[in-house]
Amino acid sequence: MISVLAGGVGAARFLSGLQQVTEAEDIVAIVNTGDDTVMHGLSISPDIDTVTYTLAAAIDPERGWGLRNETWRSMEALDRFGAVRPAGSRAGERWFNLGDTDLATHFYRTSRLAEGASLTEVTDEIRRAFGVRVRIVPMSDDRVSTLVHLAADGRVVSFQEYFVGMRHSVAVSRVEFDGADAAAFTDLALLRDAECVVIAPSNPVVSIGPLRALAGVDEVLAARRHSVVAISPIVAGAALKGPADRMLTELGMEPSVVGVARLYAPVCGTLVIDEQDAALAPAVEACGVRCVTTDTIMSRPGVGETLARTVLGAALTGGD
Amino acid sequence: MISVLAGGVGAARFLSGLQQVTEAEDIVAIVNTGDDTVMHGLSISPDIDTVTYTLAAAIDPERGWGLRNETWRSMEALDRFGAVRPAGSRAGERWFNLGDTDLATHFYRTSRLAEGASLTEVTDEIRRAFGVRVRIVPMSDDRVSTLVHLAADGRVVSFQEYFVGMRHSVAVSRVEFDGADAAAFTDLALLRDAECVVIAPSNPVVSIGPLRALAGVDEVLAARRHSVVAISPIVAGAALKGPADRMLTELGMEPSVVGVARLYAPVCGTLVIDEQDAALAPAVEACGVRCVTTDTIMSRPGVGETLARTVLGAALTGGD
Repeated sequence: MISVLAGGVGAARFLSGLQQVTEAEDIVAIVNTGDDTVMHGLSISPDIDTVTYTLAAAIDPERGWGLRNETWRSMEALDRFGAVRPAGSRAGERWFNLGDTDLATHFYRTSRLAEGASLTEVTDEIRRAFGVRVRIVPMSDDRVSTLVHLAADGRVVSFQEYFVGMRHSVAVSRVEFDGADAAAFTDLALLRDAECVVIAPSNPVVSIGPLRALAGVDEVLAARRHSVVAISPIVAGAALKGPADRMLTELGMEPSVVGVARLYAPVCGTLVIDEQDAALAPAVEACGVRCVTTDTIMSRPGVGETLARTVLGAALTGGD
Repeated sequence: MISVLAGGVGAARFLSGLQQVTEAEDIVAIVNTGDDTVMHGLSISPDIDTVTYTLAAAIDPERGWGLRNETWRSMEALDRFGAVRPAGSRAGERWFNLGDTDLATHFYRTSRLAEGASLTEVTDEIRRAFGVRVRIVPMSDDRVSTLVHLAADGRVVSFQEYFVGMRHSVAVSRVEFDGADAAAFTDLALLRDAECVVIAPSNPVVSIGPLRALAGVDEVLAARRHSVVAISPIVAGAALKGPADRMLTELGMEPSVVGVARLYAPVCGTLVIDEQDAALAPAVEACGVRCVTTDTIMSRPGVGETLARTVLGAALTGGD
C-alpha cells in the first residue's frame, strides 16, 4: 500500500502518474477536506472532486477543476436573483462556479450525507461511480474548516472565499484549521502500515497543513520518516499553481524548496525537487532532508509517471 | 384586494387570466406548500414555482411545470450514481426532474432559508426576480407535509412520491396533512379583509385541502362565504389535470361538480362550473351553493380572462 497525502490539482496529477506505474488498487489518496464548503445547500468537497475527476480522466484539462464538456446553465440562471437579494445575503451568488454536470456529484453527496452516510462512504461511492480504482479517502469525517486571516484588516474568511472569491490576491496573516482539534484523522494505520507515504506536490500550508493538524499524523510520519517522500510544490521560487509561494512569504517562511524542506523535515526523509532548483539541493540537505532532483512539472505528458517512479525509488532506498 | 387560494397548474392559469382583467398588484395568491419537498438537499416548493413561472410567462407551456427552453444536464449526470447507490438509499434518484435553469431557483430558496429568511420572504424575492407583480404568499412558514396513504398496502408516502414517483396511478385510502395542527396560516387578514376570495380550480383534496386544514381558514371563509367563489377543477366528471377525480372517488366523494360543491359548501357561496356540466347546476345549488356556468377550460386562449371576469362578477353580486 502506498499512501499519498493529497490536496487538489498537483496531487491529482501526481496520483494520475502513480496509477500508471503501480497497481491503482494499492494506492490510497488521503485528501484534504479543509476546503470543503456548502454552497446553495450543497456539500462540496473541492479537493476530493479534483482528485476523483482527474483519476477518472473526466477533469476539464484547461480549468484543472470540474468536468469536461461542462455547461453552466444553472449558474447563469442565478443572475436574475442579484437584483432581489437583500443586503447582507449571499444567496444565489455565483462567484463559486459549479457546472451543470458537476452539480450531480454534489447532489449525490448531499443526499447521502443527509441519509447518515459518512463522507468516507460517499467519497468511495462517488469514485466508484467514476470508475476510479485508486482508493480516495477524506482526511476526516469530522468537519475541519480552513480559515484565512487577511493581513489588511484582520478579517477571517473561509478558504474558498479567499481562494475563489478573492482569487487569492490578498495578503494573509494567519491560517487556521477550525475544528482540527476535535477532528479524528481517518485512520492512522493508513500512514503507519503503508509501504511508503508520499506528500503530494500540494500547498504545504492550506492543503497538507490541515492533514498535519490532525492528532497523530505528524507523530506517525515522524516515526517512519525514512520512507516518507515529499514533492516540492514550489519550483524556482514560485508555486506552479495557486498562492503557495506568496502564502509562505506572508507567513514568514521562505518561498523556495528550502522553505518547503524546513516545513517537512520533521515528517519526511526525502524531498523531491525540480531540476531548476538543483543548485539548492545542498541547502535542502542542510535541513536534514535527503534531496532528489528530477523533472516535477507534470503539465508535460509522461512527467507524472517518471516522477512517480522516482518517488517510489526514493521511498524504497530510504532517506534517513 | 382579491385573495386566491391556489394549488399548481390550474390555479396558475386562473391567476394568469385574473392579472389580465384586474390590477396585478391587487391580487394575492396564497399557495399550497403541502407538496414542498427536499430533493438533493434543495428546498423545493412546486406549487409556488408553478404559480411564479406561469405569471412570469416563463413556464414551459407543454409540460405545465418548470421553465421554458430548459435543459436536463444535471439530472442526466445523476445516472452514473445508480450503480453505486447502496440498497435503501434514494440519493441521486432522478424520478423528480429538475431542469438546469429551474435549479437556480431552488439554490436561491435553499440558501435564503439557511440564512434564516422565512419562506414568505424568499417567495416574494423570487417572484420579484421573475418580474411577477401578483403577490405570491406561501400558505404557511411552518412545515406542512401532505402524506398519502396507499389503499393497496397502507403504506404512507409523500405527496411527490405519489404524484411524480408513482404518476398518481395508485389508489389512495387517506390523505393527511402532517404538521397542519401546529402550523399557522400566513395571515387570516388576507382572507378576512379581501374584497373577494377565490378558490382556484385546484385539487380540492391535496391542493386546497392543506390550506383549509390550517387553523382559522374555514371559519374566516364561512363567515364571508357570500363573497367566496370557487371554480370547479372537475369538468364532466374528470379532472382536467392530475388525479382529483380518482382521488375523490377513492376517498368516498363524488367525482363531479356536485362532489366539489359538497366539499366547498361550508366555505363558499358560489361555485363556477363548466358549460359541459350545465345540467348539474340544480344539483350544485341543492348543496346550498349558487351555481354559475361558463367556459372553464383555460388551455384555450382568452378563456382565463373571461373566467376571471365571471368570477369577479359573481363575487360582487354575492352568492348567499
